[in-house]
Amino acid sequence: MQPIPPNYMAYDRTIVVFSPDGRLLQVEYARQAVKRGSTAVGIIINKGVMLGAIKSSMPLAVSETSKKVFEVDDHIGLVGSGILADARYLVEMARVKAQINEITYGEPISVPTLTKYLANHKHMATQYAGLRPFGIGLLIGGVDKTGPNLYETDPSGTMIEWKAQAIGRGAEKAKKVLKTGFKENMSEKDGAKLLLKALKTGEKNVEKENIELAVITDKEFKKISGAEIDKLVKTK
Amino acid sequence: MQPIPPNYMAYDRTIVVFSPDGRLLQVEYARQAVKRGSTAVGIIINKGVMLGAIKSSMPLAVSETSKKVFEVDDHIGLVGSGILADARYLVEMARVKAQINEITYGEPISVPTLTKYLANHKHMATQYAGLRPFGIGLLIGGVDKTGPNLYETDPSGTMIEWKAQAIGRGAEKAKKVLKTGFKENMSEKDGAKLLLKALKTGEKNVEKENIELAVITDKEFKKISGAEIDKLVKTK
Amino acid sequence: MQPIPPNYMAYDRTIVVFSPDGRLLQVEYARQAVKRGSTAVGIIINKGVMLGAIKSSMPLAVSETSKKVFEVDDHIGLVGSGILADARYLVEMARVKAQINEITYGEPISVPTLTKYLANHKHMATQYAGLRPFGIGLLIGGVDKTGPNLYETDPSGTMIEWKAQAIGRGAEKAKKVLKTGFKENMSEKDGAKLLLKALKTGEKNVEKENIELAVITDKEFKKISGAEIDKLVKTK
Amino acid sequence: MQPIPPNYMAYDRTIVVFSPDGRLLQVEYARQAVKRGSTAVGIIINKGVMLGAIKSSMPLAVSETSKKVFEVDDHIGLVGSGILADARYLVEMARVKAQINEITYGEPISVPTLTKYLANHKHMATQYAGLRPFGIGLLIGGVDKTGPNLYETDPSGTMIEWKAQAIGRGAEKAKKVLKTGFKENMSEKDGAKLLLKALKTGEKNVEKENIELAVITDKEFKKISGAEIDKLVKTK
Amino acid sequence: MQPIPPNYMAYDRTIVVFSPDGRLLQVEYARQAVKRGSTAVGIIINKGVMLGAIKSSMPLAVSETSKKVFEVDDHIGLVGSGILADARYLVEMARVKAQINEITYGEPISVPTLTKYLANHKHMATQYAGLRPFGIGLLIGGVDKTGPNLYETDPSGTMIEWKAQAIGRGAEKAKKVLKTGFKENMSEKDGAKLLLKALKTGEKNVEKENIELAVITDKEFKKISGAEIDKLVKTK
Amino acid sequence: MQPIPPNYMAYDRTIVVFSPDGRLLQVEYARQAVKRGSTAVGIIINKGVMLGAIKSSMPLAVSETSKKVFEVDDHIGLVGSGILADARYLVEMARVKAQINEITYGEPISVPTLTKYLANHKHMATQYAGLRPFGIGLLIGGVDKTGPNLYETDPSGTMIEWKAQAIGRGAEKAKKVLKTGFKENMSEKDGAKLLLKALKTGEKNVEKENIELAVITDKEFKKISGAEIDKLVKTK
Amino acid sequence: MQPIPPNYMAYDRTIVVFSPDGRLLQVEYARQAVKRGSTAVGIIINKGVMLGAIKSSMPLAVSETSKKVFEVDDHIGLVGSGILADARYLVEMARVKAQINEITYGEPISVPTLTKYLANHKHMATQYAGLRPFGIGLLIGGVDKTGPNLYETDPSGTMIEWKAQAIGRGAEKAKKVLKTGFKENMSEKDGAKLLLKALKTGEKNVEKENIELAVITDKEFKKISGAEIDKLVKTK
Repeated sequence: MQPIPPNYMAYDRTIVVFSPDGRLLQVEYARQAVKRGSTAVGIIINKGVMLGAIKSSMPLAVSETSKKVFEVDDHIGLVGSGILADARYLVEMARVKAQINEITYGEPISVPTLTKYLANHKHMATQYAGLRPFGIGLLIGGVDKTGPNLYETDPSGTMIEWKAQAIGRGAEKAKKVLKTGFKENMSEKDGAKLLLKALKTGEKNVEKENIELAVITDKEFKKISGAEIDKLVKTK
Repeated sequence: MQPIPPNYMAYDRTIVVFSPDGRLLQVEYARQAVKRGSTAVGIIINKGVMLGAIKSSMPLAVSETSKKVFEVDDHIGLVGSGILADARYLVEMARVKAQINEITYGEPISVPTLTKYLANHKHMATQYAGLRPFGIGLLIGGVDKTGPNLYETDPSGTMIEWKAQAIGRGAEKAKKVLKTGFKENMSEKDGAKLLLKALKTGEKNVEKENIELAVITDKEFKKISGAEIDKLVKTK
Repeated sequence: MQPIPPNYMAYDRTIVVFSPDGRLLQVEYARQAVKRGSTAVGIIINKGVMLGAIKSSMPLAVSETSKKVFEVDDHIGLVGSGILADARYLVEMARVKAQINEITYGEPISVPTLTKYLANHKHMATQYAGLRPFGIGLLIGGVDKTGPNLYETDPSGTMIEWKAQAIGRGAEKAKKVLKTGFKENMSEKDGAKLLLKALKTGEKNVEKENIELAVITDKEFKKISGAEIDKLVKTK
Repeated sequence: MQPIPPNYMAYDRTIVVFSPDGRLLQVEYARQAVKRGSTAVGIIINKGVMLGAIKSSMPLAVSETSKKVFEVDDHIGLVGSGILADARYLVEMARVKAQINEITYGEPISVPTLTKYLANHKHMATQYAGLRPFGIGLLIGGVDKTGPNLYETDPSGTMIEWKAQAIGRGAEKAKKVLKTGFKENMSEKDGAKLLLKALKTGEKNVEKENIELAVITDKEFKKISGAEIDKLVKTK
Repeated sequence: MQPIPPNYMAYDRTIVVFSPDGRLLQVEYARQAVKRGSTAVGIIINKGVMLGAIKSSMPLAVSETSKKVFEVDDHIGLVGSGILADARYLVEMARVKAQINEITYGEPISVPTLTKYLANHKHMATQYAGLRPFGIGLLIGGVDKTGPNLYETDPSGTMIEWKAQAIGRGAEKAKKVLKTGFKENMSEKDGAKLLLKALKTGEKNVEKENIELAVITDKEFKKISGAEIDKLVKTK
Repeated sequence: MQPIPPNYMAYDRTIVVFSPDGRLLQVEYARQAVKRGSTAVGIIINKGVMLGAIKSSMPLAVSETSKKVFEVDDHIGLVGSGILADARYLVEMARVKAQINEITYGEPISVPTLTKYLANHKHMATQYAGLRPFGIGLLIGGVDKTGPNLYETDPSGTMIEWKAQAIGRGAEKAKKVLKTGFKENMSEKDGAKLLLKALKTGEKNVEKENIELAVITDKEFKKISGAEIDKLVKTK
Repeated sequence: MQPIPPNYMAYDRTIVVFSPDGRLLQVEYARQAVKRGSTAVGIIINKGVMLGAIKSSMPLAVSETSKKVFEVDDHIGLVGSGILADARYLVEMARVKAQINEITYGEPISVPTLTKYLANHKHMATQYAGLRPFGIGLLIGGVDKTGPNLYETDPSGTMIEWKAQAIGRGAEKAKKVLKTGFKENMSEKDGAKLLLKALKTGEKNVEKENIELAVITDKEFKKISGAEIDKLVKTK
């Protein structure tokens, strides 16, 4: 984030206000909430998308609910970085939207349509007084008629399509790994290897059991647990 | 809570505003209200959930109304820590929701569905101007088709599933007890012993008559009074 | 009330804001309004409830309207301490609610149902911007199917059931009298004696004609005037 | 009014806020508006009520419109002290309410019902943001089935029934006159004498033509002019 | 206007707030807008009302639109002092109200009914947040069933009936002329002479062509131009 | 504009507030926006109205859209000075209003009716919180049943009818030219000459191609381009 | 942007406020957001319009979504400079509007009608409290019945028609290139050459693959990729 001049007091306390140099400071601060979140990674593989994240290590927690990778539909998932309650809220919006789309049009929602829906909601929260921006970055991955898709939305409501992308506190380091290691049409095994490497580079001291991994193909959304991850990575 | 820089004046006075480092200070302060509340504990046992809390000692009060453990439905209960009037308000919301669900779908509401409902309400209060966050942490325990469930929601609207969890002013100490002592499929007796130990470690000078204990099984929601607690603990 | 650090300026000027240590200062200030009010006392007796308060001594005032003990229905009454215009407003809400309940369900409203209704209204005023909390404590007493009931609600919307309770500026002293003197199933005479002793301990220089006393039984709500009080106390 | 500590800045600038000691300063300030108004007096006499006030002396003004004593219905009147535009507004509300009551129930509105209606409106203005309190005190007098009634409402929405009462800048002095001189069942003549004495004690240099006097009986609401006042006072 | 203590900062910046001594400063400031306006005069004459004002001297302006005396109906007119756009707005409200009254009741609106309507609108703007008071004083003159009427409303929403009255920057001086010179049942000629004298005393350097004069009788609302004024004054 | 005392801070930051001397500072500031705009001139000629303005010189701009003289209907046009986006907004409102009038009443809207419509909209923006005043002055010219009309509205919502008028940064100088040169019933040629002289006196360095000129007669609204202006001025 | 005096604090923190010299500072700051955006250029060519922009260089991004040139309809496109989430929002509004127009009127929307629609939306955001201005400049190009059209709208809601125009951080330099090089009826090849030259002059270090180019003719909206650009420029 660009430094903020000391006399900018008050430009940054309500979302509907521009600073003299044309910045929306509240949106920039919400982006900091994303940068404080744990690292999340998404990768397009052959006929699928992989999403991965680091779960907090909480003894006695049922790991299913402390998750950061969410299933939206059997062909779309998403992973968030930042304020997790905001992610949960948007996930529910996404699920309802996906179901309504399926009922109304008789076919699964496309990944960009769903992403746009969430991005619009985020954008609205940056323009109307009485709302704060969403402090959450999202990687939305899925497989639709056009094949596998991976999108990112940030707190401003911008949406960008990626082949591989990382968000959260380790994003800068993880992106370098992705940039070097990404190949088109990777197998699940190679995708998992790259994703794990990116995650482990972004975060310090990653325990195997704290890794959350999901593979979305045209067949299903499947979560892969610690032991299965080992098996997958060592496959063939 | 992380320390707050002295020049953060005003970032923390309205909920819709992020601080420059991406924090929602009002939500953090509401979490302090939870940390000021008396200790509450929840534990999954064999085919059931136990919820426990410390009642204030008030002579001449009818103890039923100074309670902190509430029955939502005959299969779900909850215990709160923080601003009790907020708990009471959410309990009533929960009861109405549970009844509507039963009438509409002809079956009892599931524990995660009810928890999500309350968490959404809490989240909404963190995003819209004109509302303050709820200053209450909740442990929601119940038995549904999937067996016993225990969830926590905090003032941000996050929800996490636990096998055993403690909230309130003695939470840190009580959690250590739970971590050490928790076993899967404990009997009512062992569950009660662990829960009492956790409560007594979290709070100083706990009198027997100030302990509130509830056991929720697939058969019933039952409150256990001081004398019965003794009997239960000494059973068999 | 806990002391308020000098740099807490502004946390206490709008209800929707938590202070850094998780307190709702406006609600605490509204409780001060209750503590500034004249003392009010309620006691459960045999098959009934007694409510008592001190009227201001105003020559030429028709004493009926300067009263602090209000009849809600012929089986429920309440007494308030704090901002009297707030009490009057809630009494009217209570009366309408009680009538609607009777018309809708064909039976008198229960005491806890009515109390919850008033407590919810008070709670709402602590969460929504654009409203101030109610600066009034209430003791609500009545006789319903379950027998005599006595409830208290404070400005936060908390509700507690009591066997005997005092609120207002003399509450601390009066509560000690109640604690020592309360017995289950007292007669009207003994109840009146205890209540008067509590009132006179809480307030200085109480004149007989300034005492307001009401007895609610399953038969009626009856106000007892100065002379009648004497007669009652000396009965049998 | 109690002194206001110098550091109370801002507690007194919006109605929805309590001061740390539980006061609503805006309501106290509105009461100052009443205390700045000219003196007004009301007295219960035999089968009637008398209301009196001091008109400002304005040459060329048609005295009927600078009046402070208003007819609500042929059996109820009121006199105000404070911000006169507020009084005019409430008088119109009262007139409409009285007519609607008569149409709906086929009988004149009772004095306490009308007073409660106005008091509720005043109370509402002390609790909702976006409104200021009414800066007007009212003495409402009338004759209904229960005989003659005299009520006072202040800016907080409190209502008190009186046998005789004075409000406005000379209230303290006038009340002493009333206290000493009031008798039950006074004749019109004696009532007028007492009321005039109270008014003249409260205000300096009262000219006969500036006195406004109204007598409300079960027969009529009648205004009495300067010369008629003389005649009345000297009757029999 | 009474002096405003230096520490009254902020009591005067939003209408819904009383100052500690019970004043509504925004209303007092709006009255200053009236006192800054050019002088306007109204007089009851025999079977009619005269309204007069000073137009600004603007070369090339079509004088009809820079007028300050407005026709509401053929039997009512008004003249304003203060913020002219506010006057224009209220004149249109008045015209619509007058037409609706005529259509609904089949007879012209009475002068006090119309005045009350405008005064209520002004009063509302002094009590609700989100509106500023109207910065306009009005003299409303007309002839209805009761004969000629002349009313004044100020920014607070007060209404007073006059035989002759002046508002605006020269009001004090003009009122002295009216007080000395007013007689009941003056002819149009004598009325015009008195009104012109009052206007010329209130304003310096009045040019004949800048005088606006209207006579309202039961027959018509007629504007009188500079030359006609001369003729009228010299009639008979 | 009158000087603003240094301690007037805050009276000028929200429209709904009067300053202690009865001024609406935000409206005065909006008038400054008009005074910063380029000069615009309107003149009544024989059976028509002429409107003229200076376009900014922008190479590659299609001059039709950088215009400041707008056609509302084939018998009404307007020219604005100040914030051009405000002018465009009001022009569209005017066009819709004119069409609705024609459809509803079967005849073209009159010039004062349209002007009043725009002036009301401007006035509203000076009284309600949540809106800023319009920063635009308008000269509205047209020919209706009553012949040619020329009106001005300023940001306060005042409307004045003129024979010839200038607004914008060169208004003072241009008005002097109009005052000296205006004659009743000028021909198009003479009108154009006077208007051009006024424009060129108000603005420095006016290029022929930057002049915008429109003539509205009962036959048509016609724009006249640079070359045509030359031809017109040299006609006959 | 004109310098802002140091004591202008607060005039620039809410959109509904004018500064004392008649400026809307928030709108000026939003214009700074446009000036911080990457350069965008539009040019009218023979029977078509060309729009060009610089994409950020983001490895692994699917370039289609990081685009700045958007297709609205098969005959209209637009390119934005500033806050891209605002552009995306307006593009969606434009697409819906275009479709509704086609369905309602059975013909494609004209370019000025669509531009006006977007400009109105931007203007509204500069006048109502509770909204911030849009921080985006747009060049809207298309071919309708009247031939090719190119419009610009800025954050104030102004709309201007151009033959060639540039916006964003390199606008000043690019405009000089356009001014010198623009010719009427250029071929696609010459248009592309001029547009590329303007872009490269406005931005430093432009990589071929970061250039986005679209040609809109009456036949189609076509995007031209890096390699195709080379081919086009070297055509014939």
